[in-house]
Amino acid sequence: MTDQTPIGEQMYGWATDLFPIMRSLTGPGVRQTLDYLKELLPGLETRSVPTGTRVFDWVVPDEWTFRAAYIEDEQGNRIIDAARCNLHVVNYSEPVDKWIYLSELQEYLYSQPDTPDVIPYVTSYYKRRWGFCLSQKQRDALLPGRYHVVIDADLKPGVMNFGELILPGRDQTEVLISTYVCHPSMANNELSGPVLATALARWLSGLDRKHTYRILFLVETLGAIAYLSEHWRQMKANTIAGFVLSCVGDDRCYSFLPSRKGNTLADRAARHALTHHAGQYKEYHFLKRGSDERQYCTPPIDLPVALMMRSKFGDYPEYHTSADDLSMISPQGLEGSFRLYTKCLTILEGNSYFRATLPCEPQMGRRGLYPTISTRDSYLEVQDMVDVLAYADGTMDLIDLAEAIGHDAEAVLRIAAPLIREGLLALSDKPCPANME
Amino acid sequence: MTDQTPIGEQMYGWATDLFPIMRSLTGPGVRQTLDYLKELLPGLETRSVPTGTRVFDWVVPDEWTFRAAYIEDEQGNRIIDAARCNLHVVNYSEPVDKWIYLSELQEYLYSQPDTPDVIPYVTSYYKRRWGFCLSQKQRDALLPGRYHVVIDADLKPGVMNFGELILPGRDQTEVLISTYVCHPSMANNELSGPVLATALARWLSGLDRKHTYRILFLVETLGAIAYLSEHWRQMKANTIAGFVLSCVGDDRCYSFLPSRKGNTLADRAARHALTHHAGQYKEYHFLKRGSDERQYCTPPIDLPVALMMRSKFGDYPEYHTSADDLSMISPQGLEGSFRLYTKCLTILEGNSYFRATLPCEPQMGRRGLYPTISTRDSYLEVQDMVDVLAYADGTMDLIDLAEAIGHDAEAVLRIAAPLIREGLLALSDKPCPANME
Amino acid sequence: MTDQTPIGEQMYGWATDLFPIMRSLTGPGVRQTLDYLKELLPGLETRSVPTGTRVFDWVVPDEWTFRAAYIEDEQGNRIIDAARCNLHVVNYSEPVDKWIYLSELQEYLYSQPDTPDVIPYVTSYYKRRWGFCLSQKQRDALLPGRYHVVIDADLKPGVMNFGELILPGRDQTEVLISTYVCHPSMANNELSGPVLATALARWLSGLDRKHTYRILFLVETLGAIAYLSEHWRQMKANTIAGFVLSCVGDDRCYSFLPSRKGNTLADRAARHALTHHAGQYKEYHFLKRGSDERQYCTPPIDLPVALMMRSKFGDYPEYHTSADDLSMISPQGLEGSFRLYTKCLTILEGNSYFRATLPCEPQMGRRGLYPTISTRDSYLEVQDMVDVLAYADGTMDLIDLAEAIGHDAEAVLRIAAPLIREGLLALSDKPCPANME
Repeated sequence: MTDQTPIGEQMYGWATDLFPIMRSLTGPGVRQTLDYLKELLPGLETRSVPTGTRVFDWVVPDEWTFRAAYIEDEQGNRIIDAARCNLHVVNYSEPVDKWIYLSELQEYLYSQPDTPDVIPYVTSYYKRRWGFCLSQKQRDALLPGRYHVVIDADLKPGVMNFGELILPGRDQTEVLISTYVCHPSMANNELSGPVLATALARWLSGLDRKHTYRILFLVETLGAIAYLSEHWRQMKANTIAGFVLSCVGDDRCYSFLPSRKGNTLADRAARHALTHHAGQYKEYHFLKRGSDERQYCTPPIDLPVALMMRSKFGDYPEYHTSADDLSMISPQGLEGSFRLYTKCLTILEGNSYFRATLPCEPQMGRRGLYPTISTRDSYLEVQDMVDVLAYADGTMDLIDLAEAIGHDAEAVLRIAAPLIREGLLALSDKPCPANME
Repeated sequence: MTDQTPIGEQMYGWATDLFPIMRSLTGPGVRQTLDYLKELLPGLETRSVPTGTRVFDWVVPDEWTFRAAYIEDEQGNRIIDAARCNLHVVNYSEPVDKWIYLSELQEYLYSQPDTPDVIPYVTSYYKRRWGFCLSQKQRDALLPGRYHVVIDADLKPGVMNFGELILPGRDQTEVLISTYVCHPSMANNELSGPVLATALARWLSGLDRKHTYRILFLVETLGAIAYLSEHWRQMKANTIAGFVLSCVGDDRCYSFLPSRKGNTLADRAARHALTHHAGQYKEYHFLKRGSDERQYCTPPIDLPVALMMRSKFGDYPEYHTSADDLSMISPQGLEGSFRLYTKCLTILEGNSYFRATLPCEPQMGRRGLYPTISTRDSYLEVQDMVDVLAYADGTMDLIDLAEAIGHDAEAVLRIAAPLIREGLLALSDKPCPANME
Repeated sequence: MTDQTPIGEQMYGWATDLFPIMRSLTGPGVRQTLDYLKELLPGLETRSVPTGTRVFDWVVPDEWTFRAAYIEDEQGNRIIDAARCNLHVVNYSEPVDKWIYLSELQEYLYSQPDTPDVIPYVTSYYKRRWGFCLSQKQRDALLPGRYHVVIDADLKPGVMNFGELILPGRDQTEVLISTYVCHPSMANNELSGPVLATALARWLSGLDRKHTYRILFLVETLGAIAYLSEHWRQMKANTIAGFVLSCVGDDRCYSFLPSRKGNTLADRAARHALTHHAGQYKEYHFLKRGSDERQYCTPPIDLPVALMMRSKFGDYPEYHTSADDLSMISPQGLEGSFRLYTKCLTILEGNSYFRATLPCEPQMGRRGLYPTISTRDSYLEVQDMVDVLAYADGTMDLIDLAEAIGHDAEAVLRIAAPLIREGLLALSDKPCPANME
């Protein structure tokens, strides 16, 4: 695969490579994932927090090293084997190796009766226990008798890992892109996020950037909490917008989950991009949140973080089961999300305040911007330019102005270009009301 | 009747006792009513203003002492007799005792042709006149001839009475509860108000109160004007919410009449209580006002006073007629209003600003507030607690916060209790934005 | 025609007189039009700007003196002749006199294929060219051969004219009324504006005015730019509302084009007047602007200027063609617009802040403003007065107050009159919250 491969296919290829890895809160799976991404993003730094470290209200638990997990019957058949699907073991299970009767084993089994064909995804990070996940059908087929349960894993002091890539811009203003690398073999609610973050990072690397981009590959919840406990001051001071990338790989309807405040720059840019990229999308309330926006948007930190997704986590039947596999996502689905996010980031890059420099309309004709003959429809031809000037009162940013004149903000950047060149339009980072001295 | 009697029946019993009394703007009827209430509310103070006193733009008129009123025909039959229904006399009539022909008598008769069975309620407080009220059917049945009209009543200097009960709270903040005791035998548009005020006062007496409660039993309009002329400064300074109790005894749909400004704390608490107590209710505009909110909400005084009612005054056919009798109200209707008002006052008592004390979500698990195993649905179980924390940014009061998360504010008080106990949530009387120092 | 002639017929008569004049950006047609109006408005001043003057981004071009324009065939027939309809010549054409073949002539012809019976209106002010306008049917009927094209006109240094009438008021506050006198024979999109401005000016002359009225008869675009370049400081400082009069003569649905900001005093007064005069009207967005509001509302100048119209310019089929003739407008249509504008200006004249002077409701009865007997419906009779008092908190102007109580602002002025006389209501030019010292 080369850089000429369409971006959707590139992303799908990376997801395919990363799919089999047994990720968890801590341990070699996360490191293996970050090492793979580092090949694609040379500037990506892999960092770590020692286990036992207190991060805000939490303590980083031991590192989990997983080797194997299975249930054997008395004939030695491996009825359940994490080698076939790594969701079969309760993630972060403590080790076990013993024979128990089915009646006792039932306490350690997790299945979803309402979707009897799929293996559920279950974790137990903060209480030591062990267990197996299996489909309801598999569970119903278990015969009475004794079973050999084996989980070959360690829980020992070590580190919790994360990846961080800072792409500096001309200004101090920051855009946060955060995704997670802690779920084992799931495609939409795991790998679609890191592969989109990777594709965006590569695209941003080639731009002359106004903003600084902070791109994070964390373990969900605790990774975000640990990262914030170190960096919240700087992030609170500089972040103008942020996005959590999650569930961005399928082909279904776009969806949007705003920040807690609901009308930050991140929300405005995202809604504008969704409207002009997708036409229709489903908007959720922040009450339906579920990923690291839960941390970024807590009151004392309160970052402007939103999510543009395809199918929202928790709201599609395959969510947190073995059915969220590589067939859930597609090159087209991933590419759609890539186009949506690049549109949104383009708008953030161009989001100045627009100010007309002259009183009254300028004489567009002598600048070659207006037809010299005036017929019934001639005014329409330059309508877009005069509309931009008419609303450029220095109090509206690009998004406000685009919405005031009913245009796509990316189109407004194109319409504005000759006006800026002719000195008819001035840009500024802060509101600057149009005024004659 | 004891304190164990259901509250609706207690209230209905009090209304039954008070129904026959001939109340008016001034005179023994008001005093008799206040004396009865004083038995139920030992702290109630009966106060008075001398007639002739100037109160703002008004002068308190003479005291009216009523003894009897009737119309006799030439055979000595008492065709109309206020002893049968005290609405038969125009309230505040001057005395009269003479024989007149039917044609002349007609000028002194009041009836409602559109509801021909009922006796209308008519008053003439500010112009001396006399008259009788009767049903249109009674009027139509009058035969030509001479009639003996007798009104045995005095209009003499005296006092205008009112009852005042102040229940002090921990804070200076006041809640006003105002009702009226000036209508003769009418049930919904008179007695439902004082009996609900009495029940609420008894309930409030048993609470550890944050706010001070000013509970007033006034004659409508002039009583409120006279009371305000004395107390407006203190009331304007301290009143955070107020309610006029009127038409709260029937079983029909709840209704709401907001304050003039429409979004004061009284309005917000009332709408919230109505929504979660009644589900549906009818909201009127302040333009449809009619009781003492007319005085409390006038611009220079501008108290935050609203009304939660059942059938609104002026908007039910029995209003201001003899059909507004004890069959209009019921123990169930009164009890529903009692529950609604106690809910509303509970919300006002608990209406602090909520502030999360920690950055990021706390580790609920180690506090026993979160299940230790994470399955697809486990997050939902503590959703309410994390939602309260997520919105507790110190800028929203209880009502705002409850509405932001789509909950009943009383339920939020229950959800918040363990969070307050664990130190995860702090309360304050004023907005106090969540911030890490 | 006398002052007793109904105003709609007077206006229609003036339009009929002015219709044949060959108006343009500059030249004798504008002067002839202004001279006619001066007969009706003795105070009207005719002013001028020399050609070659720089006005903001523009330069005033030469003066155009038109004498004749026609196309003759080889037989000497005048196929096209501006003497029959002055739209036949491209307005502001340079002179020409030569024989050319039809194939070459086609480049100089303008027609509208989609409306084949009408002659379009075409101008070329800022590039020297010549041309003829004709109906598509006329064009299709042209036979191959040679044609004699003659435009007898001059383009020479001179002046650009405009008319200005200042009607001083008691206050410095100004209302702008602006219309244009640069289109040749068109009725709705030209003459309806100046004749309505004239009628309003005559009506205003007879009023005891609070505001000063600045009434302008300009050439569109460049006239407004030139006028603003001289007067913008004073206009920006004093103008509380302004209106461009355009397309106000037909009988079709009323329409409204708000100012750029959309909620200035001009917009509020206009929407209120439209609602209570017309009931329904069509509201356009400022993006659909097209007359001198384009200049008045540009960001650095930003005057509160709106348009109340009948059929909006650009939105009716006869617009900018020979079909916009005297049959497009009517005395009734003009009179409706006159009534609408006088209503709107009456509201602006009466637009004080209203403040109740007394706490509580006043005793209306002893002032003869309230019935002395109180029956079920008696309160309704004075509802309007107490509603005005209840909302007169000193923070709402007439329009706000009228809308708060659901009334026509002109009706509120009538309702308020006895209250002002009795000292119950005070007026002020600025917000003045009702307060007891």
